[in-house]
Amino acid sequence: MVQISSESFTVHGRTYRPPAKPVVVICIDGCADEYLSVSLSKDRMPNLARMAAQGYRGLVRGALPSFTNVNNASIVTGMPPSVTGISGNFFLDPETGEEVMMNSADYLRCGTLLAEAARMGRKVGMVTAKEKLREILSHDLEGIAFSAEKANEAGMETHGIEDVETLVGAPTPEIYSGEASLFVLRSGVALLEAERADFLYLSLTDYMQHKYGPETPESLDFYGAMDVEIGRLLNLGAVVGMTADHGMNAKQTSDSHVIYLESVLTEQFGGVRVICPITDPYVVHHGALGGLVMVHLTDPAQTETVARFILEMDGITEVYDRDMAARKLELPGDRIGDLVVLSGRDVVVGRTPEYHDLSVLEGGLRSHGGRYEEMVPMVLSGSLNPVYAAKAQGDPRNFDIFEFTCNGMICEEDHV
Amino acid sequence: MVQISSESFTVHGRTYRPPAKPVVVICIDGCADEYLSVSLSKDRMPNLARMAAQGYRGLVRGALPSFTNVNNASIVTGMPPSVTGISGNFFLDPETGEEVMMNSADYLRCGTLLAEAARMGRKVGMVTAKEKLREILSHDLEGIAFSAEKANEAGMETHGIEDVETLVGAPTPEIYSGEASLFVLRSGVALLEAERADFLYLSLTDYMQHKYGPETPESLDFYGAMDVEIGRLLNLGAVVGMTADHGMNAKQTSDSHVIYLESVLTEQFGGVRVICPITDPYVVHHGALGGLVMVHLTDPAQTETVARFILEMDGITEVYDRDMAARKLELPGDRIGDLVVLSGRDVVVGRTPEYHDLSVLEGGLRSHGGRYEEMVPMVLSGSLNPVYAAKAQGDPRNFDIFEFTCNGMICEEDHV
Repeated sequence: MVQISSESFTVHGRTYRPPAKPVVVICIDGCADEYLSVSLSKDRMPNLARMAAQGYRGLVRGALPSFTNVNNASIVTGMPPSVTGISGNFFLDPETGEEVMMNSADYLRCGTLLAEAARMGRKVGMVTAKEKLREILSHDLEGIAFSAEKANEAGMETHGIEDVETLVGAPTPEIYSGEASLFVLRSGVALLEAERADFLYLSLTDYMQHKYGPETPESLDFYGAMDVEIGRLLNLGAVVGMTADHGMNAKQTSDSHVIYLESVLTEQFGGVRVICPITDPYVVHHGALGGLVMVHLTDPAQTETVARFILEMDGITEVYDRDMAARKLELPGDRIGDLVVLSGRDVVVGRTPEYHDLSVLEGGLRSHGGRYEEMVPMVLSGSLNPVYAAKAQGDPRNFDIFEFTCNGMICEEDHV
Repeated sequence: MVQISSESFTVHGRTYRPPAKPVVVICIDGCADEYLSVSLSKDRMPNLARMAAQGYRGLVRGALPSFTNVNNASIVTGMPPSVTGISGNFFLDPETGEEVMMNSADYLRCGTLLAEAARMGRKVGMVTAKEKLREILSHDLEGIAFSAEKANEAGMETHGIEDVETLVGAPTPEIYSGEASLFVLRSGVALLEAERADFLYLSLTDYMQHKYGPETPESLDFYGAMDVEIGRLLNLGAVVGMTADHGMNAKQTSDSHVIYLESVLTEQFGGVRVICPITDPYVVHHGALGGLVMVHLTDPAQTETVARFILEMDGITEVYDRDMAARKLELPGDRIGDLVVLSGRDVVVGRTPEYHDLSVLEGGLRSHGGRYEEMVPMVLSGSLNPVYAAKAQGDPRNFDIFEFTCNGMICEEDHV
């Protein structure tokens, strides 16, 4: 057995004290707590059940907007979006006036704890399902970083690893599949088994959660298959922490609705642009409809009137102007709209009917982005020590997950 | 076996079709979903586990403010606070200018489904832990209605029952105890066993949840004891539905804080009165500190300025003026403040330091009232039929619980 570094390190004022054993943090993309509750109640996750019984299970608050890039950036830095600069998957770049993806590490305004862990001697492995996340999260990282989506393209110089398919023993998966997430977990198992890494961040994709509710056989099978890999990670002696980037709610029932906000506002006020920050290259998931949008106004004098008008609409729950949104939602003020608009549990907000191709949606629409997808699970393989038990009773965040996983559990060695 | 009426009935536009067997709805006061998750993970609730496995477990949205009277009134009427008129435990009566408890049925603006069920031939039994709730919920009810707190005072003329202690086989409990809630459940069991009732509403008290987090041995013992009674209700052939009036969060950790809003506003603006609608006669629970307060202004011209000032404060999450609060939070506009103020997950809002006697709190402060105690569990003893499975995937409410329990489950008889 190779010696594992237990050097502590400090990033953005937080000190991480990883134990001298494998540390694995998993972000189950789109994992509303109900997925765990239902899968557990149907006896489909015996390893998770063991973690919850012997360790900890509770709720943590994610970052808003409750989108993937936003929360993954926060998780690997331990910082809110106001510090990371990542405010969505997609935004209106104020410097260029262009609507662009926020997929590049150029947009990240602070370093990651993964890079620092590697500098301190940990063998870091970072595996994402979607390629879009890999670049941003592997910023400055001297270690292994690849995506399931492009596993077959990983090379030693660019990704710190090659022949991933051979290592994992499976072909590069289709991104629109549960297999894409399972491949990430299996990669983690393979990296630990081969002693290629001892500090892992495994970030899955929410394709399955967008498509299937917690009670469906497909979802139960998927969570059952994930549980098998979680068991393997535990059996390899890893300290495991799990959370989610955001929850997931059904948005297309008889009572629910889609608000095409740009259409409504243009008719009423003119000169308005609505940006859907959920927008990403993976449209089959959600058709770019989510629970939070940015509104850009041409005339700043309209701000209050438009804000009030939007807030009065059925299905809208919160509206903040730029300054208040930056303050209340911890957002980078220069990368959001003049107004930030949130919607209810079963409501999504879009741009115009033409902008959203709902025909690509497979089955009903399940989505996220707003307040009702903000609370997510945190599950830890060990029970909390008193300091972190107290922290868990406050307002813990999903981007505290590395701190909880490294520092928060009672070490068995301490109790001989 | 006495024949049970399966007559359907309609209240406020909703039709309830109770099966010809005992129907039991339980409101576990202050039951954040974490209490169930943790108790289940520690194998302390085998009967609940059976309900979740064979029936349904999910989340429903409660009414705001997330307080007891508000949500119990909504549950027994099936209507939001804008219709029930119950906006808190305590309010500033606009007709008298007095600050008064909202405990009387005089404040209820619509009839209850319990009263209508009784009219249609069901033998209704309504048992609350706290006496404060009994009057309001038993409005117009021809049936049995008593509280655990004053069980020994129940008389045939006034409560539809006497000798409750003999029936239940236990003495009237101390209200500051877990026993108070267990007595309510045991009363339900006794009423079914004696065939004195076949349509039950059992509303517990959150003393234990205010005092203990989900992981504490005291809480686990309490949920285990509740589970025994739930098992008895199921074994008596009852259709059981469970929800909560509100969740519960820890509010007194190192990072959290109490905002004495009246003090702050008086210094800044003068002429401001803050009403804490959590206020009730049971101060040991929470010291009248909760996650939502009403602000009454002397000068209406200050509304916008004060609203913005409050929203800028750390720990405050939402502020609405009267009209917007009535619309967005479904509140009766004449029974709320000029401003309605909500706070974060680990923050409570109070009036002045003098107004709140924190020395009465036993242990740390756990409380509720705001957005972070809005989502609560719904657990049903049978699996959902397609119509209600779809409803559960939208934005179901805790005050839909009678409809789900009466109409929502697949009847085994239908599947012979």
